[in-house]
Amino acid sequence: MSINTFGRLLRFTTWGESHGPALGAVVDGCPPGLALDEAWIQPFLDARRPGQSKFTTQRQEPDAVRILSGVFEGKTTGTPISLMIENVDQRSKDYSEVAKAYRPGHADYAYDAKYGFRDYRGGGRSSARETAARVAAGAVARLVIPEVAVLGYVAEIGGDAIDLANFDPAEIGNNPFFCPDAQAAKRWEKIVDDARLAGSSVGAVVECLATGVPAGWGAPLYGKLDADLAAGMMGINAVKGVEIGDGFAAARLTGEQNADPMRPGNDGPEFTENHAGGIAGGISTGQPVKVRIAFKPTSSILTPVETIDRDGQATEIRTKGRHDPCVGIRGVPVVEAMMALVLADHKLLHRGQCG
Amino acid sequence: MSINTFGRLLRFTTWGESHGPALGAVVDGCPPGLALDEAWIQPFLDARRPGQSKFTTQRQEPDAVRILSGVFEGKTTGTPISLMIENVDQRSKDYSEVAKAYRPGHADYAYDAKYGFRDYRGGGRSSARETAARVAAGAVARLVIPEVAVLGYVAEIGGDAIDLANFDPAEIGNNPFFCPDAQAAKRWEKIVDDARLAGSSVGAVVECLATGVPAGWGAPLYGKLDADLAAGMMGINAVKGVEIGDGFAAARLTGEQNADPMRPGNDGPEFTENHAGGIAGGISTGQPVKVRIAFKPTSSILTPVETIDRDGQATEIRTKGRHDPCVGIRGVPVVEAMMALVLADHKLLHRGQCG
Amino acid sequence: MSINTFGRLLRFTTWGESHGPALGAVVDGCPPGLALDEAWIQPFLDARRPGQSKFTTQRQEPDAVRILSGVFEGKTTGTPISLMIENVDQRSKDYSEVAKAYRPGHADYAYDAKYGFRDYRGGGRSSARETAARVAAGAVARLVIPEVAVLGYVAEIGGDAIDLANFDPAEIGNNPFFCPDAQAAKRWEKIVDDARLAGSSVGAVVECLATGVPAGWGAPLYGKLDADLAAGMMGINAVKGVEIGDGFAAARLTGEQNADPMRPGNDGPEFTENHAGGIAGGISTGQPVKVRIAFKPTSSILTPVETIDRDGQATEIRTKGRHDPCVGIRGVPVVEAMMALVLADHKLLHRGQCG
Amino acid sequence: MSINTFGRLLRFTTWGESHGPALGAVVDGCPPGLALDEAWIQPFLDARRPGQSKFTTQRQEPDAVRILSGVFEGKTTGTPISLMIENVDQRSKDYSEVAKAYRPGHADYAYDAKYGFRDYRGGGRSSARETAARVAAGAVARLVIPEVAVLGYVAEIGGDAIDLANFDPAEIGNNPFFCPDAQAAKRWEKIVDDARLAGSSVGAVVECLATGVPAGWGAPLYGKLDADLAAGMMGINAVKGVEIGDGFAAARLTGEQNADPMRPGNDGPEFTENHAGGIAGGISTGQPVKVRIAFKPTSSILTPVETIDRDGQATEIRTKGRHDPCVGIRGVPVVEAMMALVLADHKLLHRGQCG
Repeated sequence: MSINTFGRLLRFTTWGESHGPALGAVVDGCPPGLALDEAWIQPFLDARRPGQSKFTTQRQEPDAVRILSGVFEGKTTGTPISLMIENVDQRSKDYSEVAKAYRPGHADYAYDAKYGFRDYRGGGRSSARETAARVAAGAVARLVIPEVAVLGYVAEIGGDAIDLANFDPAEIGNNPFFCPDAQAAKRWEKIVDDARLAGSSVGAVVECLATGVPAGWGAPLYGKLDADLAAGMMGINAVKGVEIGDGFAAARLTGEQNADPMRPGNDGPEFTENHAGGIAGGISTGQPVKVRIAFKPTSSILTPVETIDRDGQATEIRTKGRHDPCVGIRGVPVVEAMMALVLADHKLLHRGQCG
Repeated sequence: MSINTFGRLLRFTTWGESHGPALGAVVDGCPPGLALDEAWIQPFLDARRPGQSKFTTQRQEPDAVRILSGVFEGKTTGTPISLMIENVDQRSKDYSEVAKAYRPGHADYAYDAKYGFRDYRGGGRSSARETAARVAAGAVARLVIPEVAVLGYVAEIGGDAIDLANFDPAEIGNNPFFCPDAQAAKRWEKIVDDARLAGSSVGAVVECLATGVPAGWGAPLYGKLDADLAAGMMGINAVKGVEIGDGFAAARLTGEQNADPMRPGNDGPEFTENHAGGIAGGISTGQPVKVRIAFKPTSSILTPVETIDRDGQATEIRTKGRHDPCVGIRGVPVVEAMMALVLADHKLLHRGQCG
Repeated sequence: MSINTFGRLLRFTTWGESHGPALGAVVDGCPPGLALDEAWIQPFLDARRPGQSKFTTQRQEPDAVRILSGVFEGKTTGTPISLMIENVDQRSKDYSEVAKAYRPGHADYAYDAKYGFRDYRGGGRSSARETAARVAAGAVARLVIPEVAVLGYVAEIGGDAIDLANFDPAEIGNNPFFCPDAQAAKRWEKIVDDARLAGSSVGAVVECLATGVPAGWGAPLYGKLDADLAAGMMGINAVKGVEIGDGFAAARLTGEQNADPMRPGNDGPEFTENHAGGIAGGISTGQPVKVRIAFKPTSSILTPVETIDRDGQATEIRTKGRHDPCVGIRGVPVVEAMMALVLADHKLLHRGQCG
Repeated sequence: MSINTFGRLLRFTTWGESHGPALGAVVDGCPPGLALDEAWIQPFLDARRPGQSKFTTQRQEPDAVRILSGVFEGKTTGTPISLMIENVDQRSKDYSEVAKAYRPGHADYAYDAKYGFRDYRGGGRSSARETAARVAAGAVARLVIPEVAVLGYVAEIGGDAIDLANFDPAEIGNNPFFCPDAQAAKRWEKIVDDARLAGSSVGAVVECLATGVPAGWGAPLYGKLDADLAAGMMGINAVKGVEIGDGFAAARLTGEQNADPMRPGNDGPEFTENHAGGIAGGISTGQPVKVRIAFKPTSSILTPVETIDRDGQATEIRTKGRHDPCVGIRGVPVVEAMMALVLADHKLLHRGQCG
């Protein structure tokens, strides 16, 4: 089965392959009357856009978005918003190798096992190129939650983590890694460049904070805010782990250490700590919502790896061509988009039942 | 908003509060003709049942399940299966404290913020008691996937992990911790008992393996198998993190280290490693599906914690009465149930589109 | 596939067979803080209850509803509301005939074709007895839309229609037919009694009006208010047709005749006619919402009908025992329940997106 | 709320406004390996296309469809199929009148009441132009059910019905009315032309038969085949009534008259009649599925009608410009598309649970 729609009230459906003519998203359920045009969406796509530094793939895509419906006189009408991005740089190349053999770590074998065959050009539907559509949809979602600020960044590359003492949000835009720690960014240059030059790849951990989320969003027990965030993040290409708040570290704390005490604040309670990552019982508490996401190293590497071909025969494959030496970096705008989409959906859900 | 249904083709809906007359699940979409009676379900509930050792809460609940519909002459009919478990040991006690003040780490404040008030008796709907309903539903799901073996266990308590060299599935039933490492189980006795005696609590990491899953299950891009597992696991009470395969550890590997090479096998490809946890591109690969889940320490502790009352005034609260010193332990049957439910759902989804 | 959940934000799931121990509904998504107890629901069930006159089946069921969850201190908590009705009068009888042969007009053959076998006792899941669960759920839905008055009645039995000149809502409760025309009710006594005595049955047309629905409810283009009403009504046992407003009669009008002119009113526009039945473009207009529903004659008749048995051999069957000579009559409370459920759902949906 | 997705396993999402740059559909869940190209879809769009006779609107649209994703080397891949149709003939005209005042019978007022404002150009999202997207999606659905033949036709215009004695499917393509009765088609020329010349409009009844549907499709109790068909048909622009089989006529029959006796057949049972329209208990019986749909007369007429403007002041409006004098005619390809979409969805659903 394929399911290409995400969300409950604010829903988006994406379509498109890496090397097809275009890709896009249909955003349905967006409230009416919000100011929207292509200029609002484009910067988010630009942040995700490949080819902007030597640390990402060299595929050159303008990723220019076009709004085909749902907006009238500059405002959303409440009807579905169709967003389209044309593919430009589908470099004509020889795909015979990847057509015949399975790249380990990629979805090649799984797609064949499921569907019987696959569009092998650039990974087809399984390509991370599809995340451009999510980013475009996420830009719309941000309009739904003007009270929320979403901030994503890379917290760790190749096992080298940022130092919280150096954390400065203003730094995030100053380096090609979305890194809030200027010193870490320096170190990562070498880590990522070494991997790139070796034809290898490294993993990363991305963090995302949403501040301004009021207490009360979330739909227990099977539409919990943290569960929906987990689904949204785990569904991003190359993601293998999701944590809310302290995540796995919380499993090593005692109840006393992990408590988030409350005291009277100016506007509702003030929490003195935030181990929970802003979610309790699947519902936001008013604290910043915090999510951590593990990206595996890019599977496309130059080192030959043992594999089989479509006939089940042993062979070797090495992935030539353009690839991101660290896919987690360009994951940041995607993570932010999913955060915005999940939160916007839950705002509408909450308003529907409890408004 | 509340959403109490999980799944796409095989769906279950749960209902019930900790101190209401009963709780239950309605399982819808189960294929017809499967042999089902209460005797099949009961052992799974018994494994989750409280009061069986000093390491879990002393609430005494028989958790006897009753099948109210959907079964005729010992077989499922394809119509909804209603499962009910009556609450027996709702110890009458004074709830005035928890009614008035918010227990940090619990959902008390979030429920009030969302719904305006809450059933405070034993945590009401937010109580882990609800997971009994999931376990009952999970027992039905196992019938749908006879080809799959689901194995859950505790891999770490209070930061003390099992040693893979000692891993023995046969040990899991020999100790009160679902621990596959006899030596670790010994150590955990002290860890958990110390926490219990101190009125404190500890966290845990649970792992779950599903073997026998064929390649091809999963519904990309927004119903990926790993995303659905992440949602299912993150929605369990006290869970703060989910990993597929190597999870966060994969973020510290290189592409070469993280590759799962393939070679010809007897029945499809043979993977020489399983960093991916049996899922690529959101689709099962035929390898064992592996999930790791972080449980925070129980929030109910005897140490007084700073908090506020319903009027926003400062106060302190300590959670008296019965509680699990390590909620992760009894999480094992719940994790197994969610694994079975997600896999069964995806088996049906795959058959629907690609059957 | 079986799907036993209806609704989008306000959802209900029903379960239970005609001759099982009980049946019930889980209502999920109900807003918190609404006063609810069994005494509110019971009168709606009593209106649908069998055995109250010689014009309906003589099965004696108290249909006493029990609330098992979702209510605390007399108010809905926002969590799922579990409603259970125990079956009492499952008359022990010989089902061997219906087990072996298919009753034409009933779902017997279709269930066997779909599921491979069926619970044949009293029709199992396909019995109209299940509608008790919808009626109970509908009583909850009414709490969500206090601004709306829902009025159902029988407009025609056996081809004999009410005279609008005699229409008096106060009459509906004065006769066993939910008939607003006292003279028609008199005539129907003979029509239905003749059918009953002959072991035959007659069809009926039910109408339902909802006044007080504000303009703006409905979710175009695929969750239109009229489409959801059509689905809700067509899904009721024995229903074969649904009309909104003038329905098929509108197909015989000209554009001029069918227009619903508007003029300024005290509170929004005043429509001088209501051919549309209160819905335009799938959205409520503020006029009364009007639906008409055709019920076929009961398929259970004493006259032997040609059929086949489970082995495909020719045979004859006559349906002995208790049955409604006109199922449309007891359809009125069910139609009202579905009207309330659909409207309540759309109120929440509208508030979610446009609130 | 807006909901622009239809279906459960085979789902389609449409987008686009009457006078936007384009409109389209994303079809998700289509099985892989089916031969699909634009040439397959185009004839269905051509049948619905406006401007082909004087009996339909004179808007000239090529309605050329483009497949943007989901097809590789001529076959569906199992991933979402994006279909786009560019708008060409958005005649630039003065919309100031319809922008300011509400056209009775149209969705103008309801959209304003719901969303606060609307895209008034050509009716925006509420325009029947959107049905082109459904027709394109329906062409894909037909590939999923090669065993089924779907046949739609107009059975009645302006109250003048076809004579079953003259029924000849071969006639349907021989006249501009999709009329299977050559004599009726002759009469309708005058009826429709008179309405057109008078600036008036007439209603119609469309019938649709699906033969080859095996017994067993349908998802009781809330995804019944007839309920889904009712939703699908009632959601088409201008539809006010839906009947399955005999529909309202069944309400005037006795149980004996309405019975569909069964006898042994060559391939399963043979039904000697089909009052039920091929559906019992919400499940297909193997007989032809028959649906009847009532289309109201076009609301756009030249006669001025009393209405109000956006400020609530009294005014009059007459709808100038291009319109269909009988919208039911071009409803035929749309009805066929919805029939195919619902059946294809239920085929997959049935295979998922019972396959």
